[in-house]
Amino acid sequence: MAKTIPSDSVGLVSPELIHFDEPLALRSGRVIEKYDLMVESYGKLNADKSNAILICHALSGDHHAAGYHDPDDENEKPGWWEHCIGPGKAFDTNKFYIVCLNNLGGCAGSTGPSSINPETGKPFGPDFPIITVRDWVNSQARLADHLGIDTWAAVIGGSLGGMQVMRWAISFPERLRHAVIIAAAPKLSAQNIAFNEIARQCITSDPEFHEGRYHDFNTIPKKGLTLARMVGHVTYLSDSAMRDKFGKDAIKGTFGRDLRTGKLNFSYDVDFQVESYLKYKGETFSTQFDANTYLLITKTLDYFDPSVDYDFDLSKAFANSKCRFLVISFTSDWRFPPERSREIVDTLLKAKKPVSYLEIEADQGHDAFLLPNDRYFNALNSYMNCVAAEFEDGTNNAS
Amino acid sequence: MAKTIPSDSVGLVSPELIHFDEPLALRSGRVIEKYDLMVESYGKLNADKSNAILICHALSGDHHAAGYHDPDDENEKPGWWEHCIGPGKAFDTNKFYIVCLNNLGGCAGSTGPSSINPETGKPFGPDFPIITVRDWVNSQARLADHLGIDTWAAVIGGSLGGMQVMRWAISFPERLRHAVIIAAAPKLSAQNIAFNEIARQCITSDPEFHEGRYHDFNTIPKKGLTLARMVGHVTYLSDSAMRDKFGKDAIKGTFGRDLRTGKLNFSYDVDFQVESYLKYKGETFSTQFDANTYLLITKTLDYFDPSVDYDFDLSKAFANSKCRFLVISFTSDWRFPPERSREIVDTLLKAKKPVSYLEIEADQGHDAFLLPNDRYFNALNSYMNCVAAEFEDGTNNAS
Repeated sequence: MAKTIPSDSVGLVSPELIHFDEPLALRSGRVIEKYDLMVESYGKLNADKSNAILICHALSGDHHAAGYHDPDDENEKPGWWEHCIGPGKAFDTNKFYIVCLNNLGGCAGSTGPSSINPETGKPFGPDFPIITVRDWVNSQARLADHLGIDTWAAVIGGSLGGMQVMRWAISFPERLRHAVIIAAAPKLSAQNIAFNEIARQCITSDPEFHEGRYHDFNTIPKKGLTLARMVGHVTYLSDSAMRDKFGKDAIKGTFGRDLRTGKLNFSYDVDFQVESYLKYKGETFSTQFDANTYLLITKTLDYFDPSVDYDFDLSKAFANSKCRFLVISFTSDWRFPPERSREIVDTLLKAKKPVSYLEIEADQGHDAFLLPNDRYFNALNSYMNCVAAEFEDGTNNAS
Repeated sequence: MAKTIPSDSVGLVSPELIHFDEPLALRSGRVIEKYDLMVESYGKLNADKSNAILICHALSGDHHAAGYHDPDDENEKPGWWEHCIGPGKAFDTNKFYIVCLNNLGGCAGSTGPSSINPETGKPFGPDFPIITVRDWVNSQARLADHLGIDTWAAVIGGSLGGMQVMRWAISFPERLRHAVIIAAAPKLSAQNIAFNEIARQCITSDPEFHEGRYHDFNTIPKKGLTLARMVGHVTYLSDSAMRDKFGKDAIKGTFGRDLRTGKLNFSYDVDFQVESYLKYKGETFSTQFDANTYLLITKTLDYFDPSVDYDFDLSKAFANSKCRFLVISFTSDWRFPPERSREIVDTLLKAKKPVSYLEIEADQGHDAFLLPNDRYFNALNSYMNCVAAEFEDGTNNAS
């Protein structure tokens, strides 16, 4: 029986694997000779190809940002930004042609550590090069070339996605008219790096990791990746969001304790709902995501710092940018808190760039960028209407 | 060559192992038949035994709160609260007789999971019962009996130590005149429990853990305990304290990167100072602390909630308390932030108890309670002078 798909969804979608033959020189000095990118798109590209939007994903995201893949699976969850992408939504598929890809080094179809290394006939594993945000953006520019898109109406992303947006504005100033940077930071804090390093240590300490060659041993470092994801997950949620979810005395007397028993075990078993929730989420993730990709992307995050080639002055990095900027942060986000977004805004103002800034009251922590919120969605909607008005008027210029 | 000991230190001290033969009934329903407590004391007990202070330690603390053990070791670090304990300091050994013990279940000499189980002749390991804050306080009351101390002038502690102070005020209202509760919370938040559960999973996932019987295998779960401590360590520091320590461009161009190379490795080796710092700290800890004790004490933290026997109304728990309270929090502490201390204060006011509250501007996160800070130390000093004035005047009553 076919499932019911909401009318404001893009509906059933199919990803496309696109092959690239031209070697890609990486920031590490290494070269990827050829690679595939898994791509999904929603909406229609207009005649003059001026209505294209690029959506950049974060650590655990992929190309599947909206819609559904399976007409029969009643339990299928839609793409990760379903709340924002669709007909009549903030990223309106009646107006925009929306492109989202699984980044290089990923594990959802694009070439990455679990792909077969043609030189060995085995998965790359730890031999896959570390990819930086700049490398991603270079590969995304190749994708734009392939799609015949000279200039994006907007490049949009949250968290690590927002960092790709910044890099687009720096690396390809002529190729985007708007940059929407959500819940990001100009570079990681020492605390961010510390949590990433803990996640990496969790993975590499798992005896099933086998120095990254776990495929050769027909295993995966499940426990390590579970732990890494648990650490990540806690940092994506706010203390108060967790209190709302687990801390309330929803059932008098259980006190946030595991609902199966309602009392303390006096053992090292799970006592509280939050423990079983995190374990469940972590374990589910560990079977769906590649551990080497997780390692790689945490390094991509750690290495992000576009000021490095500009005498450590980020405003100089943005000197040639030509797009307009929208920067958005969320009050309870402690991973990339509002002050980090304000650093971006201050830098853009110093560089004399047009920037709007929204600080959204939200309780969900870093995850807020994925979740419904009236002010957030209304503002995105209004901003994107202005973006659309430019090509609807035939004015493809932000200035 | 004898080392130089600062004149405001208590100097060389020796712990004392005190044996208790009376069985201790635990909250879990289990009983400890007999046990030892490792105890250190500083200053002199006065004639009417009215000048005694009990210091309660936190997760990784022990009985050695001040002074030195080895007259020859030039590199020996003093006890963990050396900044506060000594002649002329906030907890002035010229006035007070100060007692600090390693809690039951610990690994610094008191009976705990690494002690020999008389029934088996092997370490207790996972067979050691889970101890609660209430059990600790009961054992501390036995210690007071042993020392002939009927009433403490003050019971004082930070973090988990502050929870013991609360329990003293509830369980033994007649036996303390002042309760000093520093950087604590009325119970753990879901986020706190989540971090504890991650720490436990790190330890128990280590193949060297052997279900807690690692002593039998002549090994320790070093990697797991290292990871657990790394997670803990990040939560004790504030984001800004870490930025100050690691994030500054101390050496132009290195950008917080590991100083050995100053450049990115493009491998999964350590790139940033914060990574090597945390690993070093974690590894050092893992050789000094017992993994089963770490598991036990994180459960002690999770289980702390004195409201549980009072219809979940903490103010009722404090109804019979007779002491004065001083509650102190630190602005950058995100483990037990000021709002959690204000919950304690609000509860005490609701219970009509005398309470003073200090919110100290400090940048060091949860660790601030251990570190020098003028306002903090001056306020503690003033408060403790009032405590001392009571017995110096012969007035051993807070009302």
